[in-house]
Amino acid sequence: MTTPRRLESYVCGRWTPGAKDGQTLLDAATGDAVALIDSTGLDFAGSLTYGREVAGPKLRAMSFHDRAAMLKALGQALMGMKEEFYTESLKTGATRTDGWIDIEGGIGTMLTFASKGRRELPNTRVLTDGDVEVLSKDSTFSAQHILTPLQGVAVHINAYNFPIWGMLEKIAPTLLAGVPCLVKPASQTAYLTELMVRRIVETGILPDGALQLICGSVGDLLDHVTGQDAVTFTGSAWTGRKLKSHPAIVANSVRFTMEADSLNASILGPDAVAGTPEFDLFVKEVAREMTVKAGQKCTAIRRVIAPRDQVQALVAALRERLEKTPLGLPGAEGTRMGPLASFDQRVEVRERIRELQADAEIVAGNPDEVRLASGDAERGAFLNPVLLYADKPFAATKIHEVEAFGPVSTVMPYDNLDEAVSLAQMGKGSLVSSVFTNDAKVAEEVVIGAAPFHGRILIGNRASAKTSTGHGSPLAALVHGGPGRAGGGEEMGGIRGVKHYMQRTAVQGAPRLLSAVTGRWIEGAEAQQGVHPFRKSLAELNIGDQLVTATRTITLEDVEHFANFTGDTFYAHMDAVAAKANPFFDDRVAHGYLIASFAAGLFVEPNPGPVLANYGVDNMRFLTPVYFGDTLQVRLTCKEINPRANAEHGEVRWDCQVSNQHGAVVAQYDVLTMVAKTWPAIAQAAE
Amino acid sequence: MTTPRRLESYVCGRWTPGAKDGQTLLDAATGDAVALIDSTGLDFAGSLTYGREVAGPKLRAMSFHDRAAMLKALGQALMGMKEEFYTESLKTGATRTDGWIDIEGGIGTMLTFASKGRRELPNTRVLTDGDVEVLSKDSTFSAQHILTPLQGVAVHINAYNFPIWGMLEKIAPTLLAGVPCLVKPASQTAYLTELMVRRIVETGILPDGALQLICGSVGDLLDHVTGQDAVTFTGSAWTGRKLKSHPAIVANSVRFTMEADSLNASILGPDAVAGTPEFDLFVKEVAREMTVKAGQKCTAIRRVIAPRDQVQALVAALRERLEKTPLGLPGAEGTRMGPLASFDQRVEVRERIRELQADAEIVAGNPDEVRLASGDAERGAFLNPVLLYADKPFAATKIHEVEAFGPVSTVMPYDNLDEAVSLAQMGKGSLVSSVFTNDAKVAEEVVIGAAPFHGRILIGNRASAKTSTGHGSPLAALVHGGPGRAGGGEEMGGIRGVKHYMQRTAVQGAPRLLSAVTGRWIEGAEAQQGVHPFRKSLAELNIGDQLVTATRTITLEDVEHFANFTGDTFYAHMDAVAAKANPFFDDRVAHGYLIASFAAGLFVEPNPGPVLANYGVDNMRFLTPVYFGDTLQVRLTCKEINPRANAEHGEVRWDCQVSNQHGAVVAQYDVLTMVAKTWPAIAQAAE
Repeated sequence: MTTPRRLESYVCGRWTPGAKDGQTLLDAATGDAVALIDSTGLDFAGSLTYGREVAGPKLRAMSFHDRAAMLKALGQALMGMKEEFYTESLKTGATRTDGWIDIEGGIGTMLTFASKGRRELPNTRVLTDGDVEVLSKDSTFSAQHILTPLQGVAVHINAYNFPIWGMLEKIAPTLLAGVPCLVKPASQTAYLTELMVRRIVETGILPDGALQLICGSVGDLLDHVTGQDAVTFTGSAWTGRKLKSHPAIVANSVRFTMEADSLNASILGPDAVAGTPEFDLFVKEVAREMTVKAGQKCTAIRRVIAPRDQVQALVAALRERLEKTPLGLPGAEGTRMGPLASFDQRVEVRERIRELQADAEIVAGNPDEVRLASGDAERGAFLNPVLLYADKPFAATKIHEVEAFGPVSTVMPYDNLDEAVSLAQMGKGSLVSSVFTNDAKVAEEVVIGAAPFHGRILIGNRASAKTSTGHGSPLAALVHGGPGRAGGGEEMGGIRGVKHYMQRTAVQGAPRLLSAVTGRWIEGAEAQQGVHPFRKSLAELNIGDQLVTATRTITLEDVEHFANFTGDTFYAHMDAVAAKANPFFDDRVAHGYLIASFAAGLFVEPNPGPVLANYGVDNMRFLTPVYFGDTLQVRLTCKEINPRANAEHGEVRWDCQVSNQHGAVVAQYDVLTMVAKTWPAIAQAAE
Repeated sequence: MTTPRRLESYVCGRWTPGAKDGQTLLDAATGDAVALIDSTGLDFAGSLTYGREVAGPKLRAMSFHDRAAMLKALGQALMGMKEEFYTESLKTGATRTDGWIDIEGGIGTMLTFASKGRRELPNTRVLTDGDVEVLSKDSTFSAQHILTPLQGVAVHINAYNFPIWGMLEKIAPTLLAGVPCLVKPASQTAYLTELMVRRIVETGILPDGALQLICGSVGDLLDHVTGQDAVTFTGSAWTGRKLKSHPAIVANSVRFTMEADSLNASILGPDAVAGTPEFDLFVKEVAREMTVKAGQKCTAIRRVIAPRDQVQALVAALRERLEKTPLGLPGAEGTRMGPLASFDQRVEVRERIRELQADAEIVAGNPDEVRLASGDAERGAFLNPVLLYADKPFAATKIHEVEAFGPVSTVMPYDNLDEAVSLAQMGKGSLVSSVFTNDAKVAEEVVIGAAPFHGRILIGNRASAKTSTGHGSPLAALVHGGPGRAGGGEEMGGIRGVKHYMQRTAVQGAPRLLSAVTGRWIEGAEAQQGVHPFRKSLAELNIGDQLVTATRTITLEDVEHFANFTGDTFYAHMDAVAAKANPFFDDRVAHGYLIASFAAGLFVEPNPGPVLANYGVDNMRFLTPVYFGDTLQVRLTCKEINPRANAEHGEVRWDCQVSNQHGAVVAQYDVLTMVAKTWPAIAQAAE
């Protein structure tokens, strides 16, 4: 047996032990002392100041792509060290499978944010949000919403069940937003978080102060948060309410995100009777959710809602499956389920089971008897799965209120689908529900009915059986968090999660000044003409560089020629009688694709140059019909320039406006091109 | 003098007086008794139940376009009765100009939401949010975020200063979302709100229970809110904090939006020296913000930040303008500023001025002397404008903390632009700031620096002078609300404001089942082939109707012909050497517009039919180069159907995928068409 190590906090740029010995943390399975934890004497207020003043400016000076690259490098480095984390993770009671969710799930989440940051965000420091709002008819006054990083620190107060994922899923979007983090893991499993933070710091990838760690109590930290800080909390509703009502959080309107209790439901569709693939998938999923992480997942299925006539078969199938789940030492061969995180947790779960028994009877398992495949029942916090059944779920209250945070679920019957939806709603807001059905009508009715009460709903059926990530897995791309009892928070959800750490501001003004703020050309802003902008590399090109082309008249012959050449002989182009009968046209009209093709013919510069490719078109709208004899002219304006960090080119977005001889806009769209950073650099490089 | 009328509340479908006489409300300018207000004995819990059970299902059964049409009809009806509201508005102390902001500004906001609802939202009941997230490589498991209306009631607790706008700007997005409202106006001016609610109810336009009103205290209402309800509050920070910490709001994670104190700043740019148009605009704007509504606007300029060397000229110009602002009876000829809302308010404002005097000296006006153009200083709550000056604004605290909610502002100097930004930030979060400058660099530096602390920033300059809506006007299209001290809330912002009353849910599953939930075809979902889908009217067309076309090989001749015909002789199409030197191509490639044109030639159905027009293209991406000899094929799938409420046609969005002979996707985009609801109905109608 090793001497327990003394955990340290990482604040103000250095590793600091607490002034006292503090609490001893025990291995969940063996009862061995793992670590000591204490934060007495830390400068909590100073850690906030350090984050704000040392790391904030550095993070904000980076672009979204810079920060995404930083997260990618960090994620890859951590993945390379994963085995060390797996070893430490065993002490938390986690099996290899449980550890995979925490460790590789967490690192994978960070890598997904890195990838989304590069693919879905521009390579800028300021984000525009939504379309330009034109506020005056003559385009002299417009508005654009922008998002800028908060200038404070995000304090992440995490739960004990996922010491790694819980940290990474929160710091990834925060850092991508450009905001420093301060992580406070739950004490019970803080040694694993501390180990990973040590490894992160050692990589030197993050700017100093971008990630701080407090092992132990947060002391008076929350007294010092301001409106530029944010606090997130995952844990018990009781603690969450206390934090949410903290005077400094309330007085300064500090953003507070909470993820607390959740009585997640899973519904077996009326079509999914015993013998169908969906019934089998449902049994597998419920048993899996009960036993993975020993049921210590905020997203685990607590309420199993099934057609009354399927209950008997369901309970029998679940009982059989649960009894075949070997409970034992997390690292031992054959173990399918490890212990709870601590003896305290086991006491707690057993109490909650007794509460549930007021409304429900135990139909599988015995909370007071431990059956082990390996390990010592006296030293590890082992608990076999317990399944309950509540025959009158509408009369019952405990089953919709009491969360036994362990391998515990309650089966309840419904007589029609409305009842099933009502039962799901009786959880008063959950992180996730699921429905297992192969019937599109059932899926629609359950999802739409339950959606206002849920942050996520999974539909399970045979078609997605192989690829489904399952009821219990939050994904970086999807919102995690639920309304009401679940805490009302929203995390992740892809780039949405990044915006949680940014301030949205509506900026109004003359287009020229708005363009200066957003770095995007806006209608009504000044434009420069001169050299053809397709002759300019990214080094020479500026927002507002503009080309007004020569004109071209569209003739009957052009339209007929184009129709015959392409095969697009749609009646509105070819048949005057049919065109006139159409509510939109007074006569035969030119093809939209012909307008766009002629426009390109007017604006392209044919000689080899820095414009490398037209990779797409956005928001193309044909606004005015083009009749034979109409004369077109194009105004092409450089709207947005996005140099890539890791390539010799970047994206340029052009505002393309095609007008007729009356000055009416006939087509409006964005042309998307790839442009070289320098020219003739690329041509030379290729020689 | 008339007998004061007894205000009634409108709850549970009927007008109900309070059990007691209650408080007497006085005319702000004349001191005459206007109304009595009391809510004793109302069934507060019942009003929530009534909204949830009677109105909620009716509102949710309507589509967004139905609800937008309802708001439009209501807005138009109210605009037709506006004079009655103007007359009642005089009693609140509002001049005609002040009343215009409240009455026509409020109704205009409702009409803007009606218009945005029709233009920017689909004609559905469920909203999709963001793109489909593909979660498996084989497209058997995907996700889509959706938004559904909350199933509770939105309780709107409003301030006294805008009894009409305050109600309408909140109920418009709420009703558009499909959520019933319960409005509690501040007592002081509740008679005007009550009058308008009477007129609204009389129109019969809203479903029963969709709008309830409580005149007087809300009693035990908040004890009964759940996670499906929402509470918004505009008013003092003290009350706001109390409400935010209310046990039921905290315990049930009730959405709570607050708009409280705000020390809004306006910055005079270093370039905007005396003699420039921006200097004059600044003077006008500050004076206007101080005097409109007698400065009783949450958005009014409280802190005037100017270059030190401009202070003297600025104060002189402001003093002159303020002294020329006639104070008097709101309805009297020549009055430019009316009284405060009540004597209590005047006492309050004078106390706050005394607090400000700890840091600043009065440089214009005298809080203890009233100079009137009309009216009686003993009967009306009149107060002339007061301008202060703080020479050491970084040493001062009161000027950044104390909001005197009346015609009061404090001028403070800066020595460089960083200081100006820091001073703006010292408000610790505001609803709005502005900067007056004609220099793009100044605009950029101030806006980006101040943005994290603000919900809105206005840039003023000569170019937008005529069309600018000004510092103090929240607009329906823009976010209203600020971080930190301003309460941390966000209202309006166009459709963003609608989403505040909806729950976001990530839905995961097999594409077929996801499509059933969202009503949109998703990649991987089943598709039906048969009759050409362009032969189907909206009555016959279904999501997933699909056409797989014949193929077409692109030749060298095609590309050269197209290039010469359109004039698009870009080198990548014409010059093999240059194309090969390009990092994206191995040889000469076909034009993107040629691919799209040939694709249309493959998928259109030439004969007259229900497809009326191709009005646009979205998200067109050219994913794989097309070389000479490649063979193209199109898969066109009906993705979304949006019948218009008020026309014989609707929008149909088609997923268009163009592949080559290897099965690689070369182009992917959405084709947007207008399709007749029935066919040949339109042709017949036109005959």
